[in-house]
Parts: sequence; C-alpha cells; structure tokens
Amino acid sequence: MSLVADLGGIVGAEHVQADPPARAVADATEGRGVQGRADALVRPGSTEEVAAVVAHLYERDVAIVPRGGGTGFAGGAVPDGGVVVDLGRMTRVRRFDPELWRIEVEAGLSTAHLRRMAREHGLFFPPDPGAAEQSNIGGNIATNAGGPHALKYGVTGDWVTGLEAVVAPGEVVRFGGALTKDVAGYDLVHLLVGSEGTLGIVTAAWLRLVPAPEVALPVVAAFPSPAEGVAAILDVLASGIQPSVLDYLDGAATAAAGGSFPLGTLPGGAPFLVVAEADGAREEARRVAAELREALQARATTVFSPEAPGEVAALWRWRDGVSLAVTAQRGGKVSEDIAVPLDVLEQAIAATAEIGARHGLPTCSWGHAGDGNLHSTFLVDRDDAGELHRAEEAAVELFAWAAAHGGTVSGEHGVGLLKRGGLALQWSPAAVELQRAVKRAFDPKGLMNPGKKEPA
Amino acid sequence: MSLVADLGGIVGAEHVQADPPARAVADATEGRGVQGRADALVRPGSTEEVAAVVAHLYERDVAIVPRGGGTGFAGGAVPDGGVVVDLGRMTRVRRFDPELWRIEVEAGLSTAHLRRMAREHGLFFPPDPGAAEQSNIGGNIATNAGGPHALKYGVTGDWVTGLEAVVAPGEVVRFGGALTKDVAGYDLVHLLVGSEGTLGIVTAAWLRLVPAPEVALPVVAAFPSPAEGVAAILDVLASGIQPSVLDYLDGAATAAAGGSFPLGTLPGGAPFLVVAEADGAREEARRVAAELREALQARATTVFSPEAPGEVAALWRWRDGVSLAVTAQRGGKVSEDIAVPLDVLEQAIAATAEIGARHGLPTCSWGHAGDGNLHSTFLVDRDDAGELHRAEEAAVELFAWAAAHGGTVSGEHGVGLLKRGGLALQWSPAAVELQRAVKRAFDPKGLMNPGKKEPA
Repeated sequence: MSLVADLGGIVGAEHVQADPPARAVADATEGRGVQGRADALVRPGSTEEVAAVVAHLYERDVAIVPRGGGTGFAGGAVPDGGVVVDLGRMTRVRRFDPELWRIEVEAGLSTAHLRRMAREHGLFFPPDPGAAEQSNIGGNIATNAGGPHALKYGVTGDWVTGLEAVVAPGEVVRFGGALTKDVAGYDLVHLLVGSEGTLGIVTAAWLRLVPAPEVALPVVAAFPSPAEGVAAILDVLASGIQPSVLDYLDGAATAAAGGSFPLGTLPGGAPFLVVAEADGAREEARRVAAELREALQARATTVFSPEAPGEVAALWRWRDGVSLAVTAQRGGKVSEDIAVPLDVLEQAIAATAEIGARHGLPTCSWGHAGDGNLHSTFLVDRDDAGELHRAEEAAVELFAWAAAHGGTVSGEHGVGLLKRGGLALQWSPAAVELQRAVKRAFDPKGLMNPGKKEPA
Repeated sequence: MSLVADLGGIVGAEHVQADPPARAVADATEGRGVQGRADALVRPGSTEEVAAVVAHLYERDVAIVPRGGGTGFAGGAVPDGGVVVDLGRMTRVRRFDPELWRIEVEAGLSTAHLRRMAREHGLFFPPDPGAAEQSNIGGNIATNAGGPHALKYGVTGDWVTGLEAVVAPGEVVRFGGALTKDVAGYDLVHLLVGSEGTLGIVTAAWLRLVPAPEVALPVVAAFPSPAEGVAAILDVLASGIQPSVLDYLDGAATAAAGGSFPLGTLPGGAPFLVVAEADGAREEARRVAAELREALQARATTVFSPEAPGEVAALWRWRDGVSLAVTAQRGGKVSEDIAVPLDVLEQAIAATAEIGARHGLPTCSWGHAGDGNLHSTFLVDRDDAGELHRAEEAAVELFAWAAAHGGTVSGEHGVGLLKRGGLALQWSPAAVELQRAVKRAFDPKGLMNPGKKEPA
C-alpha cells in the first residue's frame, strides 16, 4: 500500500503499521462496544515528522486521528478510517527549570512521569485524571482533563502557558511559551486545549508548576443519606473552607468499592460518602482538615481522618480504583461525566438513579462534588446488546437533564464520538455555528479527527 | 442624522449622543496623544438592546466600538468613526450566590463594586488591575486584565466561568455558566476573554469567587542594585515560597514615587524595590511573610514588614499611585507592558533603560516581577511631538526585544490600537493567519472594533 510506504519514508518504515491491531484503534470505551478501524498507524518521532505526516495526509484528503495514551472515556481517539498519529514516541522533556516553576515537554510524556519529575524537585503538577501512568500530557491537554484536585487547582488547561501544535495543512505553530501572562493574540492556547485533536495535533506544551504542598490530609465522612451528604458539602463551602478535594460516592458506588476501603469498616450501607482533603504547609493543612472535620461531622455518621502517609496513600489507591470496582459489578458500564451548578447537585445524583430505574438499569454515581462533576453510571452486562442500548438511551436523557439544569454534558472526559450533538443541548444555534466556524477556520477540509466533538 | 434617530428608537433618544465629546472617545492613552472620533455614542440598557443595536449597525456596515470604563492603556476603546457602544448602564448583579462562591454580573459593573460585594460576604474576587473604581468588569474581561495579585491568583480570565455576548450580525450567545468544569464545546469563553471587543461585545459574565484571605501581609525590601533585587526575587521562587504579590520598582520609579512612601524613609537612592505580600489565614500568612523576609533580606539593604491594617492600606494606596507619580515627572509617558520569561527579567529591565537612553529619553520600569511583567516606561513632555515620536519608536524596539527573548508585547494591557502588528513579532505567519481566520469566523465584515488587536 503506497500510503504506508509514503509514511515510512517520513518516519521510518518501522514506525508505520498497516491495519493496526484492535487495541490501537480503541480506548476505554471498548467496554461499551466502541471499536474503530484505521488504514494505518504512524508514530512520528518529532514535531517536524508530525508536520510532514499531516502535510502528506491533508493534501490527499486522508483523515488524521491523533492518539495519546488511549485512556479516553469518549472515543476521542477511536478512528473511523484514515491514519492514526500516535504521539507515543515524543516523550522528551525539552526544558525543565524547577527554580522557575516551569517545564516544557513533548505531548507523549506520561502524566505520571511529569508529576514524578515535579515532585523530585519539590514541585507539583496538580491535574490528576485517572490512568496517570497510561495517559499522556498531550491527551490530557486535548481533553482538558480534570481529576479530584481540580477543585482547588483547576483543570489541565489552567497549567498550560504555551502550546506547540501541528495544524492543517501541515504547519507547526506555537502560541504562548514560558510566560504566565500574554494578551498579544487571541487565546489560541486555550482554544486548542480541550479541542480533542479536531483543530490540530498538540506536539509539545509549556507548563506551569507550583511548590508541592508539604502534606495532604484526607477527611472521609459517611452520611445517612444523599441529602445529608450534599448538605454537608454545601456546609463546607458556605463555611469558607477551601479543601483541595471534595469528592463523593453514592450508596451504590460505596457498596461496589467499600469492601476494600482501607481505613476501617464503613457503617452499614453508607448511603453517601464524602472524600475530602486539605493540603498545604503542615500547620495550615491541619487547620483546614480540622475545619473540614468539624463541618462534615455535624451531619455524618462516621468520620475518618488518616494522617499516616501509608494510610493516606492507601486511601488514594482505593479512590483511584472506584471506577474499576464499579465496572466489576456487572462487567460493563456506561459512565458519563455531566457537571451541574452546585445548587442542583443533589437533584443530579437523584436524576441519575431515576433515569436508570426507568430504563431498567442499576446505577451509581461518584465524582467531584465540589465541582458539581458527576460520574453518572449505568451498569450493564457488556455482552447484552439490549442493555447497552438502553444504557445509551439513558445517557442521552441524562445529558438533556444536565443541559436543562444549567449544566454540561461533559465536565472532564470530552465529547469524542459518544457525546456528539450534546453541545446543541447547551448552546443556541448561533453559538453552535460559531464553534463550526472556528473548526472550519482551522481545518477547512474537515480531516482533523473527523466526527469528534461534533456540536450537533 | 438618521442613524442617531434609529438608535434612539432602540434604546431611547436620551441614551444616544451624536458627535460624542472628546472624553467619550478617548482612554488612558490620551496622554500620549491618542484621540478618537465617532459618529454617535449609544448606551443600551440591556443585552437585548445591545443585540438590536449591533444588528442595526452590522447590517448597515457601521463600525461598532464597545466601551467600558475608558481606562485602557492601549486605545482599545478609541474609535475611528462608527458608533461607540457604552456598557455603562448595564450594571446589574443578576445573581449572587455567596455560599456557592459565584456571581453573575452585567458588563458595566465596576470592578471595585464587584470586589466590595464579594468582601461583604467574606469572599474575594482577586483580579486587581489599576483604576478599579473606574474600570468595568466587561473591560477587564475584554483585555484579560491582570494586576499585582495575578502572581498567585491568575488574571481576570481565570475567574470567568461563563460569558454572555452579542456577536455579529446581532446574536446573543452564551458559553459556559455557573459551572467550574465544562468541555462540551471549544473554549469560546476564553477566546472572547482578551479579544478586546473584536469578536463580540461581552454583556454579562459568570464569575468564580474564593473565600477571602484572612490577612495580607506586605514585605517591602530595598536593594543596592537591580541585579541584587532580581536575584532576591529568584531566591524567593527557588525557595518554594508562594507570595500573593511579587512586584518591583526600579530606581527611577522608586525616585518618582518614593517621596510619599508611607512606611519610612527609603535608603538613599533605593536602586531597586521589591513589594511582596503573603496572604491567607493569619498563621499561614505570617509563616509565608517570615519566609519572604528571610529570603529577601539576605540581599536587601532595608526590609519593611508592616502588619497594622492602616499601614498595609497606606502601602497599597501608595503602590496604586506609582503610575501617576511617574507621569507627574515630565507630564507624559509612553508606558508599555511587555512580559518575559523570568530568566531574562533583569535583562528586560536593563533593556528598557538602554533603549530609552539611545532615544534620548528618561525611563523607568516597575511591575509584576513574579510574572515577568514590566511596565517599561519612556518619560516624555506630552507637548513635545518630537519626544512622543521618539518614545513610540523606543516602544517598537522594546516590543522587538521582548519578542526576541521569548516574551510578549503585552502582558496585561492588550494590543488595542497601539500595539497593532506586535503579534507578528511573536507568532509565525501561519499562527497569525489562524488569528485572522478566527476573527473572520466571528466577524466576517470586520466591523467589531475595527483596527484593534490587529496581528500584523
């Protein structure tokens, strides 16, 4: 096949794969039956090679699907033909100035590697989406990934001060840089952040870092009902307490994951769990943790407040495993990531259960309560096509519910393939048309990750 | 004039002015000879009226120049014909949920009013550009205004979670909302932030707030030279200290403003002054202030560390007055706002003086050292056209210097009229063309604040 030979001429034949294997055209949506296909997969080793590949493909009207760690929850890296551009070889740290709190890295560097490098120099890269070992910073940027610490520290984009990207028809562009303030141009840095490869391929980024907090002290509280748990979360905010994390698990999520809870036995059923954290210098973190305990325990049945580093680490390992524990319940799940204004958090949790029940599906939800960001989940037998179909219908209802309540169909996973059209629930036709116009401005042929982040 | 009558039909005749007075078509660039002209000025009272005005003008190919408080430093609100749309009547607080740390306000609300409202509820809206009483939140958003506290808290855009705007040809659009996370669409919120009215008119915003820090403790240190002062600033960062402010004044700025310094007598000449601040809960702020003192005093000749609220307030009033004190030196100034990577901060301060000297102009600089953001200033007699011209030439050289050193022509003031073409020093032609394509996508007729934020 001449395409493969041509690409081999650019990046070396050993870095091109014809008919890539199934795992290279799938992501974490595999469990809900999403499978892609591609004509070839190419692994460029440099920005120049990415540009040459894009130029070659764009000229020939071939779809271009960038790929990071393949851990996405929305099918953003799942191709429907065309060529997958895998950034996995581009893992260089181009420059690291720990004393100036900044780093410049290539897109293929894993988020965990970046976080470890920062830590080794007393610094902190706060965004902490799941799958930090597998996901790449490029993919985190492409989806504007969040995570538990987004409450205090913001999402991935809040740490990006500059981007290098390859845009159609094969040009390298750089916006921003090792600068924290820059208003000379439109903010095309943050237009690319979260654009899921539909405007261009992020090849490198300048990132901000901050001094690492000295300690992080979790406070976990169990509540007799979602109403009491959500009221306690609002109590925390109304008291002016600033936790670094304010996550929750509903009763079903707690039941799924509770068996391995590392801090003791959860009280019978535990219909609602809050996982909070205070961080900072030791005394300051202790002060905030004490305030957190006080605010939460007024309504809680049990409060856990571990301080030993081993216990704290065990708690976070457990928290990271919630998604897998939920999947293990029935083998599959359709798990979304709506976000809503905090005044409707309790209703959104209830709506998840109500919509699932109406479709004959068990549900659970957990997520980043302080950000109003729910992982609303419909549990399915992944081999039962009827259940999967009902779950997809339930998800569509959930999206409509979120949009009707001032929320969003996606707080942190992105739109990908699966939430196509969701934006039209949130934005007016004129606003949707602006998104389309921006897409055309960057990608007149519509070849950059086609079919993804479609607004309507 | 039929245009005036037509506009009066939309907003009421009493809210339209034919041939608006000079002060209504000027901003803070008046002192460097920038003067505008407009056919009319209109003051809509609602978003619907803004949309009707824009629809009327856009259809008739009339330029539309939005105006906030008129305090800009780049001529962004200075019209060259067309109609000024003054947002000054749109000052409503649409919704304030202090217990949820958020507020929705119209564009014409003054930044000082917003900050006071937050304070009265124990909350904090951190962006603090100068002229808080006169400038409006809409203008702050349009320029993505910064200020001393941007070091710790970020710039205006970091506090905007949603925008309502009127775009061509007269449509109301809303992006985001009372949400802290939303990746359903491209980030058109932050594309509009900093776009200086060239993509649309911001009519309202959803803003985040945070609990107000209990105390803010300034630490002011004088240094024997710029080299020692900049080294001390880098010492602070390398020690992992997180101040809320890390500003500086060079010797000439200190000389201009030093006479009214409220904390005592500055040591002879004071070639370099650092104005830092630690904030937070009382004990935490004290801890950080002590670290700041320790890091700064190793190289300082004198350190001031006021704690009494009256002294602290006096210091900030003094700091706010630096720009005026500098202007008073010779009656006029050409003051820019380049930002540079921190490793070239000292060179940027020196380059300002060197470029000024070469053009036969006294100079000074001060600004937000921790953000690498300098107010590089050429002092002029505003009635001397030759000096003004030389100062403009010096500014052009300064921009080129900043761009050549990885910096930006504008850290916080925006491009407006005065920095037209500056972006082309920073961005490649392909990147500049993307900005142009985005502009065309929003404003195909080029009528939204024409001539402003021009990239080349």
